[in-house]
Amino acid sequence: MIIQLEPNISAAQKESVLLELKNRKLKIVDVKTQINQYLVAIGKVDFDLRQVGHLEGIRDLHVVTDAYQLVSKKWKTSPSQINLGDGVVIGEGSLSLMAGPCSIEDESKTETVAKFLSEQGVKIMRGGVFKPRSSPYAFRGLGVDGLKMFYKVCRKYGIKIISEVMQVSQIAEMYDYVDVFQVGARNTQNFNLLDELGKVDKPVLIKRGISGSVDELLQSAEYVFSGGNEKLILCERGIRTYETSSRNTLDLNSVPILKEKSHLPVIVDPSHGIGIREFVEPMSLAAVAAGADGIIFEIHDEPEKAASDGAQTLNFEEAAQLVKRVRSLYDLRTSW
Amino acid sequence: MIIQLEPNISAAQKESVLLELKNRKLKIVDVKTQINQYLVAIGKVDFDLRQVGHLEGIRDLHVVTDAYQLVSKKWKTSPSQINLGDGVVIGEGSLSLMAGPCSIEDESKTETVAKFLSEQGVKIMRGGVFKPRSSPYAFRGLGVDGLKMFYKVCRKYGIKIISEVMQVSQIAEMYDYVDVFQVGARNTQNFNLLDELGKVDKPVLIKRGISGSVDELLQSAEYVFSGGNEKLILCERGIRTYETSSRNTLDLNSVPILKEKSHLPVIVDPSHGIGIREFVEPMSLAAVAAGADGIIFEIHDEPEKAASDGAQTLNFEEAAQLVKRVRSLYDLRTSW
Amino acid sequence: MIIQLEPNISAAQKESVLLELKNRKLKIVDVKTQINQYLVAIGKVDFDLRQVGHLEGIRDLHVVTDAYQLVSKKWKTSPSQINLGDGVVIGEGSLSLMAGPCSIEDESKTETVAKFLSEQGVKIMRGGVFKPRSSPYAFRGLGVDGLKMFYKVCRKYGIKIISEVMQVSQIAEMYDYVDVFQVGARNTQNFNLLDELGKVDKPVLIKRGISGSVDELLQSAEYVFSGGNEKLILCERGIRTYETSSRNTLDLNSVPILKEKSHLPVIVDPSHGIGIREFVEPMSLAAVAAGADGIIFEIHDEPEKAASDGAQTLNFEEAAQLVKRVRSLYDLRTSW
Amino acid sequence: MIIQLEPNISAAQKESVLLELKNRKLKIVDVKTQINQYLVAIGKVDFDLRQVGHLEGIRDLHVVTDAYQLVSKKWKTSPSQINLGDGVVIGEGSLSLMAGPCSIEDESKTETVAKFLSEQGVKIMRGGVFKPRSSPYAFRGLGVDGLKMFYKVCRKYGIKIISEVMQVSQIAEMYDYVDVFQVGARNTQNFNLLDELGKVDKPVLIKRGISGSVDELLQSAEYVFSGGNEKLILCERGIRTYETSSRNTLDLNSVPILKEKSHLPVIVDPSHGIGIREFVEPMSLAAVAAGADGIIFEIHDEPEKAASDGAQTLNFEEAAQLVKRVRSLYDLRTSW
Repeated sequence: MIIQLEPNISAAQKESVLLELKNRKLKIVDVKTQINQYLVAIGKVDFDLRQVGHLEGIRDLHVVTDAYQLVSKKWKTSPSQINLGDGVVIGEGSLSLMAGPCSIEDESKTETVAKFLSEQGVKIMRGGVFKPRSSPYAFRGLGVDGLKMFYKVCRKYGIKIISEVMQVSQIAEMYDYVDVFQVGARNTQNFNLLDELGKVDKPVLIKRGISGSVDELLQSAEYVFSGGNEKLILCERGIRTYETSSRNTLDLNSVPILKEKSHLPVIVDPSHGIGIREFVEPMSLAAVAAGADGIIFEIHDEPEKAASDGAQTLNFEEAAQLVKRVRSLYDLRTSW
Repeated sequence: MIIQLEPNISAAQKESVLLELKNRKLKIVDVKTQINQYLVAIGKVDFDLRQVGHLEGIRDLHVVTDAYQLVSKKWKTSPSQINLGDGVVIGEGSLSLMAGPCSIEDESKTETVAKFLSEQGVKIMRGGVFKPRSSPYAFRGLGVDGLKMFYKVCRKYGIKIISEVMQVSQIAEMYDYVDVFQVGARNTQNFNLLDELGKVDKPVLIKRGISGSVDELLQSAEYVFSGGNEKLILCERGIRTYETSSRNTLDLNSVPILKEKSHLPVIVDPSHGIGIREFVEPMSLAAVAAGADGIIFEIHDEPEKAASDGAQTLNFEEAAQLVKRVRSLYDLRTSW
Repeated sequence: MIIQLEPNISAAQKESVLLELKNRKLKIVDVKTQINQYLVAIGKVDFDLRQVGHLEGIRDLHVVTDAYQLVSKKWKTSPSQINLGDGVVIGEGSLSLMAGPCSIEDESKTETVAKFLSEQGVKIMRGGVFKPRSSPYAFRGLGVDGLKMFYKVCRKYGIKIISEVMQVSQIAEMYDYVDVFQVGARNTQNFNLLDELGKVDKPVLIKRGISGSVDELLQSAEYVFSGGNEKLILCERGIRTYETSSRNTLDLNSVPILKEKSHLPVIVDPSHGIGIREFVEPMSLAAVAAGADGIIFEIHDEPEKAASDGAQTLNFEEAAQLVKRVRSLYDLRTSW
Repeated sequence: MIIQLEPNISAAQKESVLLELKNRKLKIVDVKTQINQYLVAIGKVDFDLRQVGHLEGIRDLHVVTDAYQLVSKKWKTSPSQINLGDGVVIGEGSLSLMAGPCSIEDESKTETVAKFLSEQGVKIMRGGVFKPRSSPYAFRGLGVDGLKMFYKVCRKYGIKIISEVMQVSQIAEMYDYVDVFQVGARNTQNFNLLDELGKVDKPVLIKRGISGSVDELLQSAEYVFSGGNEKLILCERGIRTYETSSRNTLDLNSVPILKEKSHLPVIVDPSHGIGIREFVEPMSLAAVAAGADGIIFEIHDEPEKAASDGAQTLNFEEAAQLVKRVRSLYDLRTSW
């Protein structure tokens, strides 16, 4: 059960609410986000809601039967939007495009991409400086210094940054230089990381786990939300199956399902989702047709020379066509 | 290696070609379809192709390194079209819509659906009379009598029929009353059935197996083609994964991949692919955006009363909206 | 609900039982196997069982809530045994070993294997003459002539035969020359084949589907049993997963689960289950430790020259060691 | 390529070796573990090994073509053993049994279990104080205070402790109170955690990921080893598949495969692997039959009251029987 509190609830009022809930043997989680104040009450709700609902300081009260609560659409039926400032908003009402190289490389390459994105009207650049790699001997990214350079370049072009955070200690290091923290597929259930991201006031995009379920993704988002951060974005990036003709199996079923279960924006990563350069465009179109709020994809001015993921990375010509087409498809979809 | 023969090749010419191939230790499969004559030569091609290619009676000769040969796009780069007559063509250049109930029920219900489809300009009706069911105690369909009734109704409305064939003996029984034989996901690797369908001159739509790979689907199509029937349609219908929030995991990655690997038309079944009625439309749109040549989906005038699959079946209002939208999306896609 | 009838129930008595059941809106399937007579009543059982149970001609009556009925352990708690004659029994109380080549080859090779098995006290020889192959161009087996030769050789050595049947028409062709019909993993849900095998009085071993669930395997067995043949054996052979270091993922969890859910014997196929020759022995031992009633595995006098599946086929020395070890492990297990 | 250095290699000698390697464009990782000193050289080895091998200070030199190096059996063919002191050794030559509750609860319960284990001769107790939970609202364990109590109890009974570490900051907190750090299935690819565990001199048991491959498990172990800690144990605990009749699909194929690919000990967790209490024993037996070096399983004096995982937890009577039987099976296996 979610109890949304009035912003000006007094300490005494809150105390009474807590008392009433505890008397009913509910476990209470006190959640104060950047935007609102909530109490999440876990346990059996077998009493008349009005017994609690009439108390002063309560704005609203909803019973949610899902394992996840605050991210559920059952209590918040209007879609959430994440405002990055400067008119860049993620969620219902806009198509968010995020593009960039798999790994951030040198400044000149970074600038080439940022300039291209700026010309295309793409407002968010992706790029990893901490890279999760199966092998300890593979390239692991430029680290914070790379991020600072990435930040400088992007600010010059008025572009927002999304970059992956892999561990708790990186949150503070990265904080000043990112607009959106990305949680990668291998960290979707890194609960300590999620807990800490709950304390941050910057948006977090959470990728679905390598073989994560839709419900697990929502519960991971619930970690961050209940920790105090409701600026959340969900991301479908393909799951692991027996099929070997594509890198992953992009599960676009998850798009309408997530949009039905949650009020959070849903973004799709077709680059990892199929892993084959020439098919990133059709899968991007499919994602937008299925109802995605945006896509995040890999580009590079010379994909064949990219430090990682070249086989799924678009060049500028391909990217420009993709951007044009997904926009016209989005326009069609929103005209209905 | 595929050797396409001239239609008027003489017996003596063919004998010379076969001799040349056998001398090179190739295993030869002689394929005569409704349309063309081929020799498929299996084995190592380590000689100069011109040694064979100059022989009389040969139109063309292609080395294909895939496990599948005749269905490969490597030798036939132009997309194949399947003509059902009366202007109904499946494949490049048209968007094929196939709709109908999971199981054919009584005549009045069948007519209601056929009439609706006719009003919507949908030219192909689906409906099972032989139903593969996990349990021996479940409803197994009306059988051939149901098919005859189904046929009569469809002819009245000028609509073509696609219906599932489950075993060899049903091919002859069904032959006069179907326009397209459907091979279901549980029979994708029923090789005897595929062999027999190779001898038929009516089109065959093959669904991807329950957990079939893209390559297995192509090899199953190769069975039918090499058996003599090149009127083939491939169908993505979702695969089995660990995810439980949808009935199957619709693998739309397979659409551009199949279109790249094969010249055959690719149809998507969003009804089985997601299994949730309200999401059949977004997945249909996604399928068309990904490049599908058509969709096959379940409708019923009263889905809640359907004999099977009600939970994924659209009512007429939903279906009319879906048809309108996929058509406008297809128009957009083909305008690029 | 399963109603086991007395063998000497009169027509009139049976009529009364049927009437009582139909009055309660149950759908009745009349099952007469080689051994017993049953009525399977499908539908809601919301009445006092004694209202039916007291009728004459009924031996016993059980409510089974599983989707499968006759194969359930809920009504038949003692394990079933399949007697092949000459002292060869499959099921509780004996460890069944079945071995042989993937495909039957020439008579001399067949005899070499049969002789070896006979020396080892292995009483059942496996070998395919109809081979399901993904590609239409691969070797498809010797057919019925090969089976006749196989039969002749086995009878000479007093060995029983298990061989795969792929389609309905092969049942009659094979009938005189097999002791056990094998349904392969691609045919586990070939329901027409299962229906026909229900009419046969010879045992049937059903392999779990390529990505079949435990419950689907039981329901496939239910098809055969409800068709009239209760001489059934279940076989775990590995499932399809994302893991590529082995051919399939042998799911030994299914062994205790199947033994708990069903009274039928459970055999394991470690050759297909792991697909790597040197690990067939440890997986055989694991299968027996998990409670399997036997194993079926591939051997060849020269595995590297086998017509198919050489990479997972044991030579005689390896096979002899395996046989010795699984027997001593079985002895240990049954001593507890 | 792995270059094992002499323990007394001089700085100058090492410099020469490094120079030779760098001249050949190899990337060098300098690894100093508790036991040995290595250089791992990544890159193409296309020169005569003797050109490097003759240098002073080199003990041995091996080319390993796997993605993992130091954990590979290709350079270290003898099995590794992990000595916990007091005669408790994990690996070839002993059967390691680790048992305990899912979560550590109060002192009295902990003592009851420790006493039972001590009576059974089980030398290692498992128990979580940091619990990874899908939902933020679930019980997350007692934390370090619980661990201190757990430690005190175990020392009293002469029992070693294995407990899960979830994040970098917990390593130092836990260090004094554990004998083996456990990396859970959700953290198998938490590379920062693995890096830090490489700096520790206590053993680490790494569970296979929720849907991790065998090769990924080995590469995760490579992270720890190349970080400086070669006291490593691999653990199979079941993978995520479509099958729902068990909690996970215990992949015992991985046991002989891991033992062939790596010199590290392999332990199996049948409790998570099947998730059904009455089948933990057969799967434990199967694991040992397949070649496992030990098992880790959940026990509780009152499983139905356990704080978590009660459905897969054995009571003492069941555990005592399991211990007895796996030991006799292990004796049989090692007698061959």
